[in-house]
Amino acid sequence: MNDLKRKILSAVETDLHDIEKALSDNLNPYLDLVSAVAGHLLFSGGKRLRPLLMVLAARLCGYSGDYEKTFSTALEYLHTATLLHDDLVDEAAMRRGKKVAHATWGNSITVLVGDYLLARALSISAGTGSLRVVQVLAKLTENMSQGEVHQLMRKGDVKLSEDEYMEVIRRKTAMLFEAACQVSAIISDAPEEKEKALAEYGYNLGIAFQMADDLFDYTLQTADFGKEVGADLREGKLTLPVIYALKQARSDDRQLMIKIIQDNEFATEDFKTLIGYLEKYGGIEYTQERATTYIETAKAALSIFNPSPTRQTMLDIADYALARRV
Amino acid sequence: MNDLKRKILSAVETDLHDIEKALSDNLNPYLDLVSAVAGHLLFSGGKRLRPLLMVLAARLCGYSGDYEKTFSTALEYLHTATLLHDDLVDEAAMRRGKKVAHATWGNSITVLVGDYLLARALSISAGTGSLRVVQVLAKLTENMSQGEVHQLMRKGDVKLSEDEYMEVIRRKTAMLFEAACQVSAIISDAPEEKEKALAEYGYNLGIAFQMADDLFDYTLQTADFGKEVGADLREGKLTLPVIYALKQARSDDRQLMIKIIQDNEFATEDFKTLIGYLEKYGGIEYTQERATTYIETAKAALSIFNPSPTRQTMLDIADYALARRV
Repeated sequence: MNDLKRKILSAVETDLHDIEKALSDNLNPYLDLVSAVAGHLLFSGGKRLRPLLMVLAARLCGYSGDYEKTFSTALEYLHTATLLHDDLVDEAAMRRGKKVAHATWGNSITVLVGDYLLARALSISAGTGSLRVVQVLAKLTENMSQGEVHQLMRKGDVKLSEDEYMEVIRRKTAMLFEAACQVSAIISDAPEEKEKALAEYGYNLGIAFQMADDLFDYTLQTADFGKEVGADLREGKLTLPVIYALKQARSDDRQLMIKIIQDNEFATEDFKTLIGYLEKYGGIEYTQERATTYIETAKAALSIFNPSPTRQTMLDIADYALARRV
Repeated sequence: MNDLKRKILSAVETDLHDIEKALSDNLNPYLDLVSAVAGHLLFSGGKRLRPLLMVLAARLCGYSGDYEKTFSTALEYLHTATLLHDDLVDEAAMRRGKKVAHATWGNSITVLVGDYLLARALSISAGTGSLRVVQVLAKLTENMSQGEVHQLMRKGDVKLSEDEYMEVIRRKTAMLFEAACQVSAIISDAPEEKEKALAEYGYNLGIAFQMADDLFDYTLQTADFGKEVGADLREGKLTLPVIYALKQARSDDRQLMIKIIQDNEFATEDFKTLIGYLEKYGGIEYTQERATTYIETAKAALSIFNPSPTRQTMLDIADYALARRV
């Protein structure tokens, strides 16, 4: 574990403990099977980043109520619901080092438990007493599902542009980070400028976080990653490292890359060849640079808040989004 | 078309027209594909019963705003979302005489468009400005998904009891009818007794409606039904006509029935044999009687409202729930 991670974990230890407890206390189904399926993914070592950001952002806004940890579960339930449905979509075999839920319980149960979590998230957010909060989260859910549809529509298309990639990750990832931070400001009755600043922090962090995730598919080993390296490509999911390298590549190299990309059953050797091209044409480096810029923007957005341990933790989390290895 | 249907349709012609327009105006995705997939089922001749009940119940409560028709779409979007996810669950081939969405677009897109519709329903209900409305609908969605999980868990189990069947249809069908009527009272600021009466009307109508639907699987022909007759049984879905007949049957007949039920590939001849047993042991008749009782309870609940054309239409709809042939 690196120093930054250790520093963050020590600062948020109590919060993470409370969030973990709230996640288990508020799941609340009448069927044990629903607990089992939801719990399989929900309690499989997720980072709790979204609820944690929500709790920290509320603290930064001086929130004085006692609902923020319960409410933070809505963000994790929503996230888990999309993972359950997305794993089905992706036909992925592993998530966080475990077999995906639908491999054990089948597609049907998995879809329905995802629906349950989604509904539970909205119920819990209604508990804030704020209609705006519900509106933000319902609109977010509309956007997330459309982002996934968009990604599926463009599956395997080597002509996918950087703009379209940005549109997809904006909806499927960044908006959830944005919402997590924004709703904290709303429940804290924070002034508009603080709400905007937190939304900006969350949004830019979310973009960078997804870019880093997309990089991991080319820079990590399966054992560290908790899911199969190369899975994105095998599913026809073209991400920024590939999109950029394809654009920069010489025509003959480009053809070779496309051949590997379009071969669903590519060999490990081919995958290594592709990574070589991503490095040669700067796809890895470019993605790292873009992600770094988004992180800088995220951090700058917090400058309207006075220095505090909470603000520092949020700045550290932003740095960690790129420094992490999972 | 029978007289009752004609009478109802003439009374609600304008409402149905407005609801139809609102359904198309409020769908509102940024992706054409989402419109196409949602529209495939959404505009395939659904009865619009849930939004219609909502609009009628609001009128009965003297609702004076202008949001009720927009809001009514939330009920139909929610219903459509569950159909999209349930068809996937049921592995059904047809719905309303058309190929199911996932046969054309695949499971992934279908799940995600269902999610979109679900989120859209919650967004639109937040537009009422009433947190209670959102709470009712979010809680409803929790219950519906659990009802479906429950049904799946008990798939093919010939020991399913009438109580457990009731628990399933309560959650998966009756609560949506109940909510449709109840939220109308809430947005109309109706007194509590009216809200309760409408919830009771909707709930009992919903139970009867589902019982009638379950009967159709044994009493209608595929051409009239818009989906395959015998599909429930083929999917291992045991409904009241079967549950009751199994309980009443002589041991040898019971064994024969179970043999047919447990054969996923039963022949048409076997299915006819089973129907013979359902008749012999009163499964059809018992279900009809139960449904009739629920309809009477639904109608009685409306007695606290003064007689009016709207109340009469709601009474007619209750009668039609059993008299209908689709």
